[in-house]
Amino acid sequence: MTAIVSHHVYEARIDRVRSVMAARGIDALLLSVGHDLPYLAGYHAMPLERLTMFVLPRDGHASLIIPKLEAPRVVEMPSVFSLLPWGETEDPVALTHKCLGAAQKIAVGDQMWARFLVELLAVRPGATYVRAQQVMSALRATKDQAEIDALIAVGAAADRVAMQLQSGDIPLLGRTEAQVSADISARLIAEGHDKVNFAIVAAGENAASPHHHPGSRIIQRDEIVLCDFGGTMNGYCSDITRCVYLGDIPTDVADAYAVLKTAQATGVSSAVVGQTCESVDARTRAVIEQAGYGDYFVHRTGHGIGMEEHEDPYMVSGNTEIIAAGHAFSVEPGIYIPGKWGMRLEDIVVATDAGPLPMNKVNHDLVAIHA
Amino acid sequence: MTAIVSHHVYEARIDRVRSVMAARGIDALLLSVGHDLPYLAGYHAMPLERLTMFVLPRDGHASLIIPKLEAPRVVEMPSVFSLLPWGETEDPVALTHKCLGAAQKIAVGDQMWARFLVELLAVRPGATYVRAQQVMSALRATKDQAEIDALIAVGAAADRVAMQLQSGDIPLLGRTEAQVSADISARLIAEGHDKVNFAIVAAGENAASPHHHPGSRIIQRDEIVLCDFGGTMNGYCSDITRCVYLGDIPTDVADAYAVLKTAQATGVSSAVVGQTCESVDARTRAVIEQAGYGDYFVHRTGHGIGMEEHEDPYMVSGNTEIIAAGHAFSVEPGIYIPGKWGMRLEDIVVATDAGPLPMNKVNHDLVAIHA
Repeated sequence: MTAIVSHHVYEARIDRVRSVMAARGIDALLLSVGHDLPYLAGYHAMPLERLTMFVLPRDGHASLIIPKLEAPRVVEMPSVFSLLPWGETEDPVALTHKCLGAAQKIAVGDQMWARFLVELLAVRPGATYVRAQQVMSALRATKDQAEIDALIAVGAAADRVAMQLQSGDIPLLGRTEAQVSADISARLIAEGHDKVNFAIVAAGENAASPHHHPGSRIIQRDEIVLCDFGGTMNGYCSDITRCVYLGDIPTDVADAYAVLKTAQATGVSSAVVGQTCESVDARTRAVIEQAGYGDYFVHRTGHGIGMEEHEDPYMVSGNTEIIAAGHAFSVEPGIYIPGKWGMRLEDIVVATDAGPLPMNKVNHDLVAIHA
Repeated sequence: MTAIVSHHVYEARIDRVRSVMAARGIDALLLSVGHDLPYLAGYHAMPLERLTMFVLPRDGHASLIIPKLEAPRVVEMPSVFSLLPWGETEDPVALTHKCLGAAQKIAVGDQMWARFLVELLAVRPGATYVRAQQVMSALRATKDQAEIDALIAVGAAADRVAMQLQSGDIPLLGRTEAQVSADISARLIAEGHDKVNFAIVAAGENAASPHHHPGSRIIQRDEIVLCDFGGTMNGYCSDITRCVYLGDIPTDVADAYAVLKTAQATGVSSAVVGQTCESVDARTRAVIEQAGYGDYFVHRTGHGIGMEEHEDPYMVSGNTEIIAAGHAFSVEPGIYIPGKWGMRLEDIVVATDAGPLPMNKVNHDLVAIHA
C-alpha cells in the first residue's frame, strides 16, 4: 500500500525521528493505528481490539508487537524492527510496558485507540505522555520527490474523473446523490485509485452543508451539484472539489462563483515557502470577505495531504507554522448559503522552492451542463 | 445508519448507563469515534482531526461537542443531548474540559483517538481515567429483540452470498483472490448490505493465514478457497466463513474438515445462557485437540458482534464472563497447516433463553465445486 518500500528509506526516517526525539527529550515513541507506522516501518496496523504497537526507544532497537494472526502479513525488516507476536491469551499492553523499559516521556500515536493508553496509564502512571505528532508531523509534512511524484499521479487520476463530470459523461439529472457518488467512486478506481476515501455529492440546498452525506435526493434541473472526492493510489491521496450547474447559471450563483474562483487562485498562489500557513487562509478569506460573502465561508481554507486525506499542516487562522518546500495541502474555499446552495473549489498544491506546484489542473470554472 | 431510532430508546439506554456509572463511581463518560456513541445517541462521529465528543455527566445533561461543519448531519434530540458546535479556531478539548466540570473519575471511549486523551491529560492531570467499556460493554452485548431481528436479517443476506459461493455462481477458477473479493463485496451490497466491512478470499496455502489480505494470486484447480466476509445492514453486522474445494476433496482435507465441522457445531450448541464465554472456546477447542489438530487452531473461537464486527463478549480462554440472553457472537474454529492449506467455519449465534439461535443456516459442508 506504500509507494516507497526500500528498507533504506525506513532506516533514514527512523534516524530522523530519533534526532527529533532527542531534541524534545522524548524517550520512546508508540505507534499503532494510523499512518505514522506505515511511514516509519511500512506496516498498517489493523484497527482491531487486538493491539498492534510499534515501540521505538530513542536508543535501542524498535519492536513491532503484533497479534500472531497478523504476523504473516508483515514484511519483515530486521534492520528496522523486530517482530514480537503475541498469542490470544497474552496481554499486549504488558508487553508494551516491558518494551518501554525505563522510558519516562512517551510520545503516543494520534490515532491509537484510547483504550490502550488508558490501560498503559494504569500500569505506568508516573510517565509523561505527549502526542507523537511532536515527533512525526514535520517529517511527514515535508514530502520528498518520490512522495510528490505519487501526489502528482493520484492528482491526475482525480482530475480525469473531474473532467468526466464537467464534460457531462457522468449522468446527473434524475439520479440520486448516492448513485452519482457510487458512479464517481467506480471511476476513481477505474482511473487507477486503489481505494476510494470519500465521494461527496450534494445537490442544490444540500451543497450548503460542507460535509453533506450523499443521499436519496434526486438531482434536478437548474441546480448546482457539488462533488468533492478523493482516494488513495500507491499510498498517497487525492482530494478535489468541482461544482457543475444543470442549466443556465443564475446571476447570484455566477457572481459568487467568480469570487470563489479568485479566492481559490489567490490561495494557491499563496502556497509560498517561507510564508505562514495562516497567511494562506487569510489571503484566501480576504477575497471572499471583501466581496461580502465572509459569513458564508464557514471552514478553514485547507488541510495537509499525503498518506492521509487530512494531515499536517492545516491552513487555518492561528497556525503560524512556516510553509516549507515539500508541504502538500488543499486550498478549498467555499461559499454556503443555507437553504439555497453551496459551492466549493479545491485543488491540492505542493509548495516548492520554484513556487506553488498544483496537483489539479482541470477546469476551474462552474461548468454549465445542458442535458 | 442505525436501525433503532426512537429517542425513547436512547433515553432508556442513557438511564441504564447512568446506573452503571453510579455503581462504578464514574463521574463522566466521554465518547467519540466508535459505536458506543451511535448506540447511546444515534450519531456516528467522523474519524477526523476535528473532534466530536459526547460528554455524559452521571448527573446532568449530556452534550455533543461537534465541529460546526458536521452539525448539520446531527439528528437533534434535545431530550437526549444538547449540541455544542465549535468553530475552526476554537479548542474542542478545552470545551470538553469545561463540560466535565468537577468530574474526577472519567470513562473514555475505547476507540477515541489517543491524541485527545493526551491533550486532556495535560489540562486535567489529576483525574482518573478508565475504559468506557466498563460502562458500555454489558449494555451493548445484550441485544434486545429489535437488535436480534437486525442480526437475523443481515445474517440471512450473508447466507445468500455464501449460497452463491457454494452453488458455483461465483466464478473462482482462474480469477485472482482480489477479483473474487470484489465480486463477493458487490453481492453483499446486492443482497441488501449498506456497507461491506471485509471480504477475505484466501486460496490454497494462503488460507493458512487467518487474516490473509486477498491479492493477485490466481485460484487454481484442486485447492481450497476460504471466504470470510461481512458487512453492515441497518446498523448491524454479518460475518460468515465458508470454504469450498475446487475439485475432488483429498482425504487429509476431508478428515480435517469433518473435525472442524463437529467442533463448530459443538461451539454453537455451547452458546448457552449461564455458561462462561471461555467454556465455548474450551468445548470447541477440545474437539480439535482430541483429533490431533490442536496446534493448528491458532486463534480464539469467537467474538461478539452487533453494531461492530468485533465487540464484547469474546469467546476466549480467560474470559469468565457469563453468557446472557441476547449475547451475539461468532463461533469460528479453524485449522491452519502452514504452507499447505487452511480452513475455517463460522456462524453467528445469539444466546436466548430458548437455547442457541443461529443467524447462519447455509450448508456447513466443505462443498466441492467441479468447474
